[in-house]
Amino acid sequence: MIERAPSSDHTSVLNLSNLLHILPLLNVVMEETHCQSWMGFSLQSRITVIVIFIRVVLNGFMRFARSSLEFFCGRLLVLVSVRCSERGNGKANRVVCVTSGGTTVPLEKRCVRYIDNFSSGHRGSASTEYFLKAGYSVIFLYRRGTCQPFCRSLPDDPLLECFTSTDDSSIQVDPSHAEVVKRAIAENRSAVNGGFLLKLPFTTIFEYLQILRMIAVSLRSLGPSAMFYLAAAVSDFYVPWESMTMHKIQSGSGPLDMRLAQVPKMLYVLRNEWAPVAFCISFKLETDTDILLGKADMALKKYKMHMVVANELQTRKEEVIVVTEQEKITVRRDTTQRGADVEDPLIKLVVDRHSAYIDA
Amino acid sequence: MIERAPSSDHTSVLNLSNLLHILPLLNVVMEETHCQSWMGFSLQSRITVIVIFIRVVLNGFMRFARSSLEFFCGRLLVLVSVRCSERGNGKANRVVCVTSGGTTVPLEKRCVRYIDNFSSGHRGSASTEYFLKAGYSVIFLYRRGTCQPFCRSLPDDPLLECFTSTDDSSIQVDPSHAEVVKRAIAENRSAVNGGFLLKLPFTTIFEYLQILRMIAVSLRSLGPSAMFYLAAAVSDFYVPWESMTMHKIQSGSGPLDMRLAQVPKMLYVLRNEWAPVAFCISFKLETDTDILLGKADMALKKYKMHMVVANELQTRKEEVIVVTEQEKITVRRDTTQRGADVEDPLIKLVVDRHSAYIDA
Repeated sequence: MIERAPSSDHTSVLNLSNLLHILPLLNVVMEETHCQSWMGFSLQSRITVIVIFIRVVLNGFMRFARSSLEFFCGRLLVLVSVRCSERGNGKANRVVCVTSGGTTVPLEKRCVRYIDNFSSGHRGSASTEYFLKAGYSVIFLYRRGTCQPFCRSLPDDPLLECFTSTDDSSIQVDPSHAEVVKRAIAENRSAVNGGFLLKLPFTTIFEYLQILRMIAVSLRSLGPSAMFYLAAAVSDFYVPWESMTMHKIQSGSGPLDMRLAQVPKMLYVLRNEWAPVAFCISFKLETDTDILLGKADMALKKYKMHMVVANELQTRKEEVIVVTEQEKITVRRDTTQRGADVEDPLIKLVVDRHSAYIDA
Repeated sequence: MIERAPSSDHTSVLNLSNLLHILPLLNVVMEETHCQSWMGFSLQSRITVIVIFIRVVLNGFMRFARSSLEFFCGRLLVLVSVRCSERGNGKANRVVCVTSGGTTVPLEKRCVRYIDNFSSGHRGSASTEYFLKAGYSVIFLYRRGTCQPFCRSLPDDPLLECFTSTDDSSIQVDPSHAEVVKRAIAENRSAVNGGFLLKLPFTTIFEYLQILRMIAVSLRSLGPSAMFYLAAAVSDFYVPWESMTMHKIQSGSGPLDMRLAQVPKMLYVLRNEWAPVAFCISFKLETDTDILLGKADMALKKYKMHMVVANELQTRKEEVIVVTEQEKITVRRDTTQRGADVEDPLIKLVVDRHSAYIDA
């Protein structure tokens, strides 16, 4: 039941008509992931993909299409098939799926309230920048509204805060923000247009798991060159669809008692079924340092992760501990460098271990 | 206990040092709200305000200051004192506090999870534009990350989606977005720099109530010219501080049972204690049309609102029902006009009734 999506605005991307649209494309992806490149797909599959693309382009509803799964799925397929064709060419065929931000769980079917997981998306967006720099292609699966790659040093509302309008009704960047704004726009465009960065948004845990599965299945053809870097804060508890109230929960009749079920641990399914050959890194965030390493160790064994990055809420921007089967490595940001962050050395370590994994 | 703020990142604006900073300024506001203008303040109070301003400007931490209550409070005081001095001059001394977006309630003291209320902030930001057009000054109390005035027709991430960088490393707006982007920047700057729009962000219900109270108390001096237009989706349930766990709630040991207490109904306190003379409008959102009008009627009587705007989740962008003591008026958007919204006729009606209230 976990993947059944509520029908409110909050999750509109996953409505039935969208799902019907993408079915043919999903079939292509799921049946043919043993193929090594675009030309390895059967003629019929290639025609299906091309027809869907033409429909998406021609339907004129580009705003709708940009946020629909059909569109995402098409772009995902293109990215994977291009990377497939670069097999053996250094890091050019490496693809990492970076998840970022928190997932929500609705409390009502016609959703007015939901439980959210605190995550600014800073870790995921910073890591994405370093993966791109290291030559990876990145599928950035992010919570709507959270921090975007290349935008970490911008104010909350960059459009209204960084620009001014001049008398002749043209607009210009405030000199104090000019450099960061220009760099953000140029680097983002270059990564997206070059086909190295694919951004897919989610809100609820239902969307998140559905898209993650789609990515995992379509990355299978890359074998060990694919990586999952699961920095998103994924809900642990949810209200199962069948026990969810239809309407807004009423206040006014005393306290509210809620029973939340545990979300099935999908890390295990990802590692064993969806992407058994990919290199997998998960994150463990705790507020209590006493239990942090124990929990990270458990995640490593239970879900057979290749790495678990343990971090504590208060110090997460200063240091993390990378837990593998053999060792525990503390990674700290370089405090002698202004603006240095912990993601820089962390991604260097991750890329290093990924290379060893591919060569093994 | 409701106003005690947790100490995590999630609510960092309300930490103790910020509160200590604003205490002197708060005292000024609270003791002197019977004054009609800036010159009506005692010499000592004026000196206190000026000293705090100089400190804010001189401390050099403008990024910090922009998000601190001290800074907000100073700007609020300036806006109110300027409007006070325009007494009797048409609508020039009218100030409306528009609340917008949903409040959160943390589930842990070191907060990793929280309950959120679904609200895009579209209603509040659209209404703000129409209030400004009608000659009001607006205090826009909004949830961080939600829709901003003048930005409703922009894409989710306007900086990355509306701009391109050119070869000579300058940036320019995509022609397809040029008009809306220019208008958004120009109109926002004009309203903010002209002192007609003051934007104050919140995240948790603790922040929201604390800032709302500050605004209410400082608007008292405007008498019936002040209005509260409470479009924010405010939490009905919360976990009291004393029963909140310190650390992240652990999964892995079966389902989670939670008991949430009701948030005290602050509408009553606002109407009767904080701002007894202001014109007050609250909103009632339901997903079940059968109970909507009954609940709106109850809110009108129980909290002595001047108006309750009843809206149903699915149709809220098409129509609302304005409930007053005497009548129920259905307000619909003009479907013959492209891009017309329901806030346009709604604010016309609200302004009309506010004028009658002032003249009465």
